[in-house]
Amino acid sequence: MSQPPRTIEWIGDAAGFVRLLDQTLLPTQVEYRDCRTVEEVWEAIRMLRVRGAPAIGIAAAMGVVVGVGQATAPLALEGEESGVRGMGQTGMFAPRNAFAERLREVTDYLRTSRPTAVNLFWALERMAKHVERHLEKLPAEKLRGMLLEEALRIEEEDRGICRAIGAHGAALVGEGQGVLTHCNAGGLATADYGTALAVMFAAAEQGRKFAVFADETRPLLQGARLTAWELQQRGIDVTLICDNMAAQVMRERRVHLVITGADRIAANGDTANKIGTYGVALLAKAHGIPFYVAAPSSTFDLSLASGDAIPIEQRDPREITHGLGRQIAPDGIKVYNPAFDVTPAALIAGIITEKGIIRPVREEKIREMIT
Amino acid sequence: MSQPPRTIEWIGDAAGFVRLLDQTLLPTQVEYRDCRTVEEVWEAIRMLRVRGAPAIGIAAAMGVVVGVGQATAPLALEGEESGVRGMGQTGMFAPRNAFAERLREVTDYLRTSRPTAVNLFWALERMAKHVERHLEKLPAEKLRGMLLEEALRIEEEDRGICRAIGAHGAALVGEGQGVLTHCNAGGLATADYGTALAVMFAAAEQGRKFAVFADETRPLLQGARLTAWELQQRGIDVTLICDNMAAQVMRERRVHLVITGADRIAANGDTANKIGTYGVALLAKAHGIPFYVAAPSSTFDLSLASGDAIPIEQRDPREITHGLGRQIAPDGIKVYNPAFDVTPAALIAGIITEKGIIRPVREEKIREMIT
Repeated sequence: MSQPPRTIEWIGDAAGFVRLLDQTLLPTQVEYRDCRTVEEVWEAIRMLRVRGAPAIGIAAAMGVVVGVGQATAPLALEGEESGVRGMGQTGMFAPRNAFAERLREVTDYLRTSRPTAVNLFWALERMAKHVERHLEKLPAEKLRGMLLEEALRIEEEDRGICRAIGAHGAALVGEGQGVLTHCNAGGLATADYGTALAVMFAAAEQGRKFAVFADETRPLLQGARLTAWELQQRGIDVTLICDNMAAQVMRERRVHLVITGADRIAANGDTANKIGTYGVALLAKAHGIPFYVAAPSSTFDLSLASGDAIPIEQRDPREITHGLGRQIAPDGIKVYNPAFDVTPAALIAGIITEKGIIRPVREEKIREMIT
Repeated sequence: MSQPPRTIEWIGDAAGFVRLLDQTLLPTQVEYRDCRTVEEVWEAIRMLRVRGAPAIGIAAAMGVVVGVGQATAPLALEGEESGVRGMGQTGMFAPRNAFAERLREVTDYLRTSRPTAVNLFWALERMAKHVERHLEKLPAEKLRGMLLEEALRIEEEDRGICRAIGAHGAALVGEGQGVLTHCNAGGLATADYGTALAVMFAAAEQGRKFAVFADETRPLLQGARLTAWELQQRGIDVTLICDNMAAQVMRERRVHLVITGADRIAANGDTANKIGTYGVALLAKAHGIPFYVAAPSSTFDLSLASGDAIPIEQRDPREITHGLGRQIAPDGIKVYNPAFDVTPAALIAGIITEKGIIRPVREEKIREMIT
């Protein structure tokens, strides 16, 4: 199987930058975007140039390195010369703490880029924690190097996690079966290889033939643009359908299994994922088809008792009315555009993680596997 | 409430033509298309410039008038002069039968424009039957006049039917409730006023306030382009959603009732309608929300025992991949594009017809109401 282009990459040393595959241009254009400021990383996450919970986490981690780099050089110099500190600060900190202040500023800022994917917060917290004890002791340059190492470690770990998810889930996909997926939980949503798609890639690597149905996933069409493209690139039999055709394809007995990714999973297994996932899970249940979620353990938010506590991002109505190159609804029309929905644990046959499959999906099973 | 533009109109006398509102250009352009040949009417039906089961029936009926007009004049002349008959025929008929032959040719041709909506076949059969006994006796000009009268009668009857459907169904929509609809079963799908939307228009005319959620209805977006527009034009509170958001809106308890149209209903109540309807019906059931169909009795095809016998039109993959002004999927991707699905009678709380509401949906109740 050929490899699709890299989703995200750090270029250079700690003074380098983030190179992202601009996913808003796929599949007709394969273009990269270099982010040399934290604002550019924030914009890339917000505008879905990089998307998918794990990839957002990696981009945010690298965004921290870019962000502290932007200001620490001048700040460190200023601090050495005059005792002046971080942007907008009023002199409460010693020069060394200008870095801590900037780090906080950068992570707070990146946290606002998307509200639902927990990997974002997880990665930012992990980055901050990594240097926490050294902030008072080490020079900015050293801290920045440490942050880069941690960002690259998150990326590298994600590769391993994706492979492990694939290995654990592959046996679910039987010879000659049909698999339906929603949105994109592929290599483009992660450092490489994906979560839901990792299961399919691994099954294909084991030599099995099967058919994938990819929901196009309105409004932003990640299924049509990204999932269809990734599967096609890897030579897997894929058929594109509109979201509203999933029930019909299930009724025709073409689907034996549904696998999707996840953006945040509560302690009881309730799973936030791309809008439409909950509906697919209900349709799968109505047809007796098992519905699986594939996600790294960093997607679990055990601080939330259930999915009711997961905030659902509401996005710009124009994504629906104007997002496709042509205005498709009358001027002034009212639009509801939630980016995610929550699938109750009761509809999920199992959650495929890098540590194994959680099945049945119950709080004690989750805690046992994840913690 | 203001009136939207006319969907379809006959202009002039029996030598006149069909004027259609080109629905493929809505909502951004309101443009009419004059069809002076049966080929133009065929194209307008096939390309969905006119769509919706009742409107297709009316367009086809008017198409017959245009079609026999195109050729009967020359055919009649030829017949009178030389005994030569209809295009491609080899002389089996007397000159008077040139009209009958052309009528058969025109109706056979129009029958191929769309395969699923039964009103098309119903209207063509009715047109043919209307002149059947007179073919041997009356001159072409007279027959053509009779056909126009019948086409206008079908149109006029449809107006009455829509009003009656609205009157029967209006009480289903309660004050402050939410109603979800899929595709467009409004004035644009009929001569006027609609079927599913007729129920809402009638409820609004009775002074009730309620909220409508319109599924955008991929791939051709009849919900976004047509339903949202019609409701907005009539001052009804309407919110546009993507098809995959219906489950979420139901879960949030914003929907108390679903009403859709129908393209063909089998003797047992199984209902073919726009792709996605079956999924909506399943989601409604999962949330305990009643799912209603609104359709004239001409939509019933009592010759079919169940929905399994309804042929499902498969449409061009490019409607999905290229239909929105921008290519949204990779080159060469495989696509499945059924235009309709079948909702089993068991999922339908009632069918609102011009004669009353069929409830529960069972064969004997249907036969009782329809025949």
